[in-house]
Formats: sequence, C-alpha cells, structure tokens
Amino acid sequence: LSFHDRFDDLKLLKPVIFTGKEVLLLDQTKLPETEKYLKLKNCGEVAKAIKTMKVRGGGAIMLAAVYGLALSAINSRGNLKILKKDAEILKNTRPTAAALFQAIDFILRIAEKSSNVAEDVQQAANWLFKKTVEMEIKVGENGSKLFEDGDTVLTHCNAGALAAAGYGGVTLSVFRKCREKGKKIKVFVTETRPYLQGARLTLWELKKFGFDAVLITDNAVGYCMQKGMIDKVLVGADRIAANGDVANKVGTYLIALAAKKHKIPFYVSGTIDPKIKTGDEIKIEIRSPEEVLIFNGKRIAPKNIEVFYPAFDITPHQYVTAIITKDGVFKPPYNFGG
Amino acid sequence: LSFHDRFDDLKLLKPVIFTGKEVLLLDQTKLPETEKYLKLKNCGEVAKAIKTMKVRGGGAIMLAAVYGLALSAINSRGNLKILKKDAEILKNTRPTAAALFQAIDFILRIAEKSSNVAEDVQQAANWLFKKTVEMEIKVGENGSKLFEDGDTVLTHCNAGALAAAGYGGVTLSVFRKCREKGKKIKVFVTETRPYLQGARLTLWELKKFGFDAVLITDNAVGYCMQKGMIDKVLVGADRIAANGDVANKVGTYLIALAAKKHKIPFYVSGTIDPKIKTGDEIKIEIRSPEEVLIFNGKRIAPKNIEVFYPAFDITPHQYVTAIITKDGVFKPPYNFGG
Repeated sequence: LSFHDRFDDLKLLKPVIFTGKEVLLLDQTKLPETEKYLKLKNCGEVAKAIKTMKVRGGGAIMLAAVYGLALSAINSRGNLKILKKDAEILKNTRPTAAALFQAIDFILRIAEKSSNVAEDVQQAANWLFKKTVEMEIKVGENGSKLFEDGDTVLTHCNAGALAAAGYGGVTLSVFRKCREKGKKIKVFVTETRPYLQGARLTLWELKKFGFDAVLITDNAVGYCMQKGMIDKVLVGADRIAANGDVANKVGTYLIALAAKKHKIPFYVSGTIDPKIKTGDEIKIEIRSPEEVLIFNGKRIAPKNIEVFYPAFDITPHQYVTAIITKDGVFKPPYNFGG
Repeated sequence: LSFHDRFDDLKLLKPVIFTGKEVLLLDQTKLPETEKYLKLKNCGEVAKAIKTMKVRGGGAIMLAAVYGLALSAINSRGNLKILKKDAEILKNTRPTAAALFQAIDFILRIAEKSSNVAEDVQQAANWLFKKTVEMEIKVGENGSKLFEDGDTVLTHCNAGALAAAGYGGVTLSVFRKCREKGKKIKVFVTETRPYLQGARLTLWELKKFGFDAVLITDNAVGYCMQKGMIDKVLVGADRIAANGDVANKVGTYLIALAAKKHKIPFYVSGTIDPKIKTGDEIKIEIRSPEEVLIFNGKRIAPKNIEVFYPAFDITPHQYVTAIITKDGVFKPPYNFGG
C-alpha cells in the first residue's frame, strides 16, 4: 500500500501526487476541458509548474513544493547543498505564498538534522500531506455546523479540493461534511474574473462530488441576493489578520457588502496570520494587465489602454459573521493575536 | 450636403448611418478589433442585424429600426401593407426594447396619414435621429454640472455613443461636455461580463475621443473604492421607474451598494418610464446560459452545469444620488409619475 493509497476511502481529488520517483500535478490551467497530470521528474520542473500556475491554491502549491524537495533529496542522494539551492528556487516561484515558505523551512530544518536526508525529506513531505488532509477534514467538520439542510451557499473563486490536498480545501470540505450529516447543500459559484477559477475549477470539483451547483457571473451576486436565492456565503481566505480582516480574491469585499445589506451570514475559512494586526498591513498583489486583457488567446479590449488589476481585496472584520478553522468556529470580536 | 453630414462638427461616432439607399451599421460584435460597417439593403437585413446584436443600446437599436422602415418604404415605393409587415418583424427582434416600439409606432402613424410615404418615412426617421442627438447633448450639458475638474468617474457597461446616435449617449456626452468646460475627467470602466461591453465598447469610445481611461474587472470595484480611487459613479439605465428605481445592466446594484458605503455619489441617466411605479414592476430578462459559457468560441466551464444569467438588476432609488435627463438634474425624492 503506497502512502497516497492510504487515503482512498476519503476519495481525494489529488491535485498533487508523489510516486516516489515523480511529482504528478493535475494541470489546473487545462481544466475543465482536460484532466491531465504533468509528470515532473525533478525539482526544477516542479518549480516551473508552480510559477506558471499549473498548480494554484495555497495548500496545493505547498505540497507540490515539498514533494519537489523530496525529488531533489532523492535525485541528489541527500546532498544538502543541492537541497538548499532547490529550496531557494521554489521560494522564488510565488513570493507571497506564506504556507510554501513555512513548509520549505520546516523541511530544511529536518534535513539539516537528518542522517538519511532522502528518506527523511520524503517522510516529512508525506507528513505535511497528511496534516493538510486532516486540516481539511476538521475545517469541514467545524464549518458544517453553521449550515442547515436545504441551504443555498454562494462561494467565490476556488478554495476547494484543488487548492489543498484534495479532500475539499476549506469550502468543499464543509459541503462534503454537510452531506455526510444529511444536510443537502446547493452551491452558487461566481465565475471569478479574470482567471475564472470559479467557473473552471470550483464547478468542476462540485460536479465531481455530485453537488447541485449553479454558475453566475460576478456581476449577478447582488441580483441573486435581492431575490432571496442565497442563504449563506462561504469563501476561503488567503490570509486572515489577527483582528479578523480577510484578504481574499478580489470581489470578496463586494460580496460581503451585499451579504451585510441582505442580512446573509458571511463565513470565511483560511490561514490566520496572528502576526498581522489588521488588513491594512496586507500588501495587495497588483497583477499583470495581460491576465485581464487576453482571454482564450484573444484580446478583449482596444490596444494601448490602461488596465488596473488588483488580484485581492480586504474585507473588514465587521462583515465577517464567523471564521472557520481546524480548531473551531470563531465569532466576533476576533482576536487571533493572542 | 447629406442629412448626416450636417452633424459633422459634433464629431459623431455614428453607429447607424442612412445613405438613402442603405443602412450602414457599425458591427459592434467585431469591436474593438475591427471597425467594419455592415451594408444593409433592405429591412429584413436590418431586423436580422438587430436580433444578432450587431447593433445594441436602446437609442442605436431604435435608429437602426426606423431607418430599416425607411428602406422598406423606399423599396416598396410606399406600400403601407409591406411597411406594416416589416414593422412587425422589427418589433419581434428585441421584445423588451421600449424605445424601438414607440419609434416604430410613431413612424407608422406618419405613414398612414402620408401622401408620399417613402419620403415622409425617411424624414421622420431623420427627425428621430436629430432628436436623439439633441437629447444626448442636453444630457451631457445637464450632467456635466455634477462633475469637477480632476474627477475620476466609474462607469459600467456601455451607455455611450455606440448606444445612441453617436454624440455620446448618456455617459460619454457628459464627459465631452465636461471637457468643453475645461473639466478634466478620468474614467474607470468595468469590463462588464458576460458580453464585456465595458472592455470592448466603452473603452473604445473613450479612446476615440481621447479620454484617460482605465479598465478594471467587475470584481475590482470594491477595492478601487476602498482605496479612494473613484470620486463619482455615472451609469446609464435601461429604464427608470417613477419612484427613481433603476433597471440597468446586472452589476449596477453592487456598484451602488459599494458607492453608498464609501459615500461616493451615484448618478444615473436613462429613459424614465412614468407608467412604472417601482422597480418591482420591471421584468428582468434572464438570458441564455450560452452567453456566459462560451467565450471567444471556447467553453469556460464543465459540461452539463446549470447557469443562471440575469442580464439586469434593480438599484433601489435610495442609492441614486441624482438622475440626469435632457430636462435637468433630479434629486430625491423622485416622483416622475406626475
């Protein structure tokens, strides 16, 4: 029984698989048309795949990176110098991915103390995989208490199975646990321009697991809430500040405003960063205009125009009804700073 | 000097041109890549072009239709029976276009009383064109009083020159008049999924007239307002109820919510329908899932999923700071019912 087979009864979606010789990455840029795994034979190939967004989502990126280090350790027969060099290459792929940095440093600390680097790095990577699955299940368990049978839940972007080890991330895990408890959930999914992670990834996941799901444009959130079509909102968070301010995919704040107006609970789950006091301290990534301008290989706007593409926004804690973590459900006032 | 040449000093963008023998329609489905006029030789061709959205925007559709009737009258040498049949075909192209219905009935009334149908239908169509240009200029004049030199204005979808006779519709007209008065305006434009009329049409117009313009995704409205990047909002309206409720392209309501939160004036200009008491009476067009699902010829979501695409939403009058018409600027409480 291989390591990954141990999780078979959990029906993981497996965006990242380690075979002992290769890292297999489900190519998320090809979804939903094509389900194809990239076979990566060394750490350099893994780094390139992360950089070009073949894999995305905090947990999935982190797992791809640590298995990349496992390949580095195996291929170099435990050469610590090569491992450290590869660690730097991995860190440079997505400079804002907090979980990736922490995991790489964790692996390096283990390698430095190890007498069998190749073996111990693999074990540590597997341990992180297992911990991620456990986190997903706990978040699902805790979050499921907030939902009722028959709820229609709006979500934004993708914070599901493809963004983690594959059980369901911080959103799909909740829906799966609801179902286990006999609560039927219907999900409204925003398409999430410009990368359409909602339309391309979240809907694909929900269909895989047989959920009732509806695609809407980002613009239609207000209409759907006005018409009473949405009971609750559940979104992921790239980072949650100590005071409960939420950094997530741009558009989250508009959804939160509309939810507040229509008295719809707005739930968030994601990584809490207790060192960050408020959302003001979170730097928002302004990404390339090309990501907005080029769609399916074609330009959608006139030439020589200015484009402003903030990829995230901050939802102030006043709009957040509850924060779901592996440790429980937290309600205001939020104080994660200790 | 032909009829359309008389407007040369206004620098019209001319989405609809009548040559006396043909209707020339700027193909709005090909913008911004290609500026191509369709040459339509009879009323059936015009009806087909309206139905397939080669021309869109209330005023432009209306003008295309009345010039289609002019072709019908000329080609049939004033045959009233043929004219009425063609009028029915035109009415069936876009069953919710109020201005199109009113204009066709106006033309038919004139034709019924006329001794020279072919000539009088042409004259009536030209009169409607002239009236539309005058309306655009008056809206521009009135609206420009609400803006200051240096304002950054957010707009949504396209309610500019391409949606009317070509002076500037109800949004670009305001910006043009501001400039005439020495007020420099910068415009933020939402891309406006799914048809991207903001990215494809509004930006193209603004560039044509040399305005400073920035494209953002629909999702980025909240972020831009949070950061103090937007001073005012100006949007068109497909229909305004007697109490000031506004029906406009879906997403307008979310923008209004965010504007209210950030104390940003939210201005609207469009057709007032005094017979409609409140927004509750306005039927929202639910359009085809294909319009969301197919983008540049490619599918963006998995197969067999449910899509819900309301094309418009209602912004309650409480969110509307002022309504701009050709007759002036109206402030709350609104009472257009008489």
